[in-house]
Amino acid sequence: MISEKMMKLTQNSSVIRAMFEEGIRLAAIYGRENVYDFSLGNPSFPAPDSVKDAVMEILDSRDPMFVHGYMSNAGYPEVREAIAASLNRRFGTSFGAGNILMTVGAAGSLNVILKTLLNPGDEVIAVSPFFVEYGNYVSNYDGVLKVVPADRTTFQLDTEAIGEAVTKKTKAVILNSPNNPTGVIYSEETLRKLAAVLEKKSEELGEPIYILSDEPYRELAYDGAVVPYIPNIYRNTFVCYSWSKSLSLPGERIGYLVIPSEADDAQLIFEAASIANRVNGCVNAPSLFQLVAAKCVDEKTDLFGYDTNRKLLYEGLEKCGFECTMPQGAFYLWMKTPVDDDTVFCETAKKYNILVVPGKSFACPGYVRIAYCVSKETIERSMPAFEKLAHEYGLK
Amino acid sequence: MISEKMMKLTQNSSVIRAMFEEGIRLAAIYGRENVYDFSLGNPSFPAPDSVKDAVMEILDSRDPMFVHGYMSNAGYPEVREAIAASLNRRFGTSFGAGNILMTVGAAGSLNVILKTLLNPGDEVIAVSPFFVEYGNYVSNYDGVLKVVPADRTTFQLDTEAIGEAVTKKTKAVILNSPNNPTGVIYSEETLRKLAAVLEKKSEELGEPIYILSDEPYRELAYDGAVVPYIPNIYRNTFVCYSWSKSLSLPGERIGYLVIPSEADDAQLIFEAASIANRVNGCVNAPSLFQLVAAKCVDEKTDLFGYDTNRKLLYEGLEKCGFECTMPQGAFYLWMKTPVDDDTVFCETAKKYNILVVPGKSFACPGYVRIAYCVSKETIERSMPAFEKLAHEYGLK
Repeated sequence: MISEKMMKLTQNSSVIRAMFEEGIRLAAIYGRENVYDFSLGNPSFPAPDSVKDAVMEILDSRDPMFVHGYMSNAGYPEVREAIAASLNRRFGTSFGAGNILMTVGAAGSLNVILKTLLNPGDEVIAVSPFFVEYGNYVSNYDGVLKVVPADRTTFQLDTEAIGEAVTKKTKAVILNSPNNPTGVIYSEETLRKLAAVLEKKSEELGEPIYILSDEPYRELAYDGAVVPYIPNIYRNTFVCYSWSKSLSLPGERIGYLVIPSEADDAQLIFEAASIANRVNGCVNAPSLFQLVAAKCVDEKTDLFGYDTNRKLLYEGLEKCGFECTMPQGAFYLWMKTPVDDDTVFCETAKKYNILVVPGKSFACPGYVRIAYCVSKETIERSMPAFEKLAHEYGLK
Repeated sequence: MISEKMMKLTQNSSVIRAMFEEGIRLAAIYGRENVYDFSLGNPSFPAPDSVKDAVMEILDSRDPMFVHGYMSNAGYPEVREAIAASLNRRFGTSFGAGNILMTVGAAGSLNVILKTLLNPGDEVIAVSPFFVEYGNYVSNYDGVLKVVPADRTTFQLDTEAIGEAVTKKTKAVILNSPNNPTGVIYSEETLRKLAAVLEKKSEELGEPIYILSDEPYRELAYDGAVVPYIPNIYRNTFVCYSWSKSLSLPGERIGYLVIPSEADDAQLIFEAASIANRVNGCVNAPSLFQLVAAKCVDEKTDLFGYDTNRKLLYEGLEKCGFECTMPQGAFYLWMKTPVDDDTVFCETAKKYNILVVPGKSFACPGYVRIAYCVSKETIERSMPAFEKLAHEYGLK
């Protein structure tokens, strides 16, 4: 009775759902504090006070007809101006309101640009491991996701392999840096190499291959690491941003899409993307939170808590003998499983009340993702459990 | 460079856009107060104070991690409970949280249920005149919109014609009552007739034909008119609701989808719809406004202003000699054009600084839609212009 596409999704989604329910089941038996649930990418620190202050100030000072009313499908011009100005200050770009389209989070942003670009059968390249939803987003528009593995040592881009995966159907490459699930930040050097590859391929094809830069974790970079701004490296780049992580507002669904004027057909794409935003059912990004985002656009994210967790977890796991990638950004730690089958490993981990997501879910078996957006205490308390798990696999 | 679907939409959308720009152009020449813009369906009264009070109370009393965080893709259980309870009080239904799915407005709601139900080529019946976006929403999932005219005297449903339009590909019928653009409320009698037709056809097909009841104007009913609750008449009904008009929150994108347990495959459809909500890029309805909506769920809409406008406009236009349908609900007046070509009529109206939308945009030429969600003064000041327009067509 439901569509074939949704039937497939409904059957597949049960894996993640099962994990969610497993967490609840284990908590009921052992107590919430004795279950080490590292499965969810939900920010563990509250929105900064400036968010509440911004809401209060907007509601106190502005006309409710303006605050809660319809605006252009692309968003309030003043909000888009403020974001453009902030990006210009940070990255030396020269964006204006006409380059910024407000969206229902980065997920909305990715869907809007994919809907705008893809004809059925068009190909989009994703670098594995990658965020599970990319496949669903591309399939929404009957596109085909082509998976190219990242370098298996550094988890940086394998630019040569990406070049080889390009066909005459290739429309875009999705990048996600800082990366979910690896925590890796793509270096400027790698990105420049990719730009050269894509420029050459675009020329050969006679049509641009766009980069879709999915950047919800941009502000979460540790040890002073710099996250290169890809439109400055490759002009045919569209940026999909969200305040879900940087302002801890994942439920509010507020983000934007950048369409630089330097991109091919920028104006037509902007116009089409505004319409895509409307007809896909979003209509516009939520109005009050557009205004809030503009007020908080230069807010600094407090990384201290995540950074503490990151070090604690990495050191603890290394001490246990696990092989980990030190995260440079985001709030995920990527760990090699001591057995090939990551699903089996996750099952074993559950015996010790540890919940982590198998790499298979990110198209990269043999690893697990450990989300450290949890309390410091959860990490501390989980360590003896990880030690037992390591022991079971004969590590150290 | 953009997809074929979006190219078509980008070309077509220029009609509405042209009208929007015409309004700005005329206002610049004649002054805003001398342009009578009846083209937009934007609420003209602000959100009630209870909305602001609810925001303040939620931000003051609840954990920001809860208020702005992720929740189930279907929405907060407590919000869905509160909505179910309110519907049960009003309509004698027996809904629970499991029947309510929070969405990004009614547009989000319609897209979610269409994505859930439609395979490519499946047919959806819409009754003309209808809200222009239905065609786009159905086309998002490669469905086919079949248009059945309403009765051209009463603008009630032509149930026989709907029955005749059913084929083995028919999946759903979209209803919109109170109706945009006619202001008509479908009577219980007509709806019962339709239910009988669809039950018979469903039985013949061996598959349910669902009613999708698009109800953003439910609370805007005048003279004590009752808007029948369709799930009580036809069990295979899904309701798409929005607070855009009833609480004047169109920019906030907050609404819900009702999936009654009595509907065929209700549980599977609910599960698939939750996933559709996630993968279409919405993820979930905006979190703070979910909580606000729950607090304001029993808020009474103040109809006095719209009702005053409605009477003023109807009487004024009738006096001019125009042939109008007296609106029973929503905030639109549907008027027959004194010439067959409604586009020509709209052009002529522009000479008098009157902006109205041609019926052609609602798949019903020979009429215009006049949106009276404007100030009372706009209506009063527009009357001499309407008189001149009537005079030009030799009325009265």
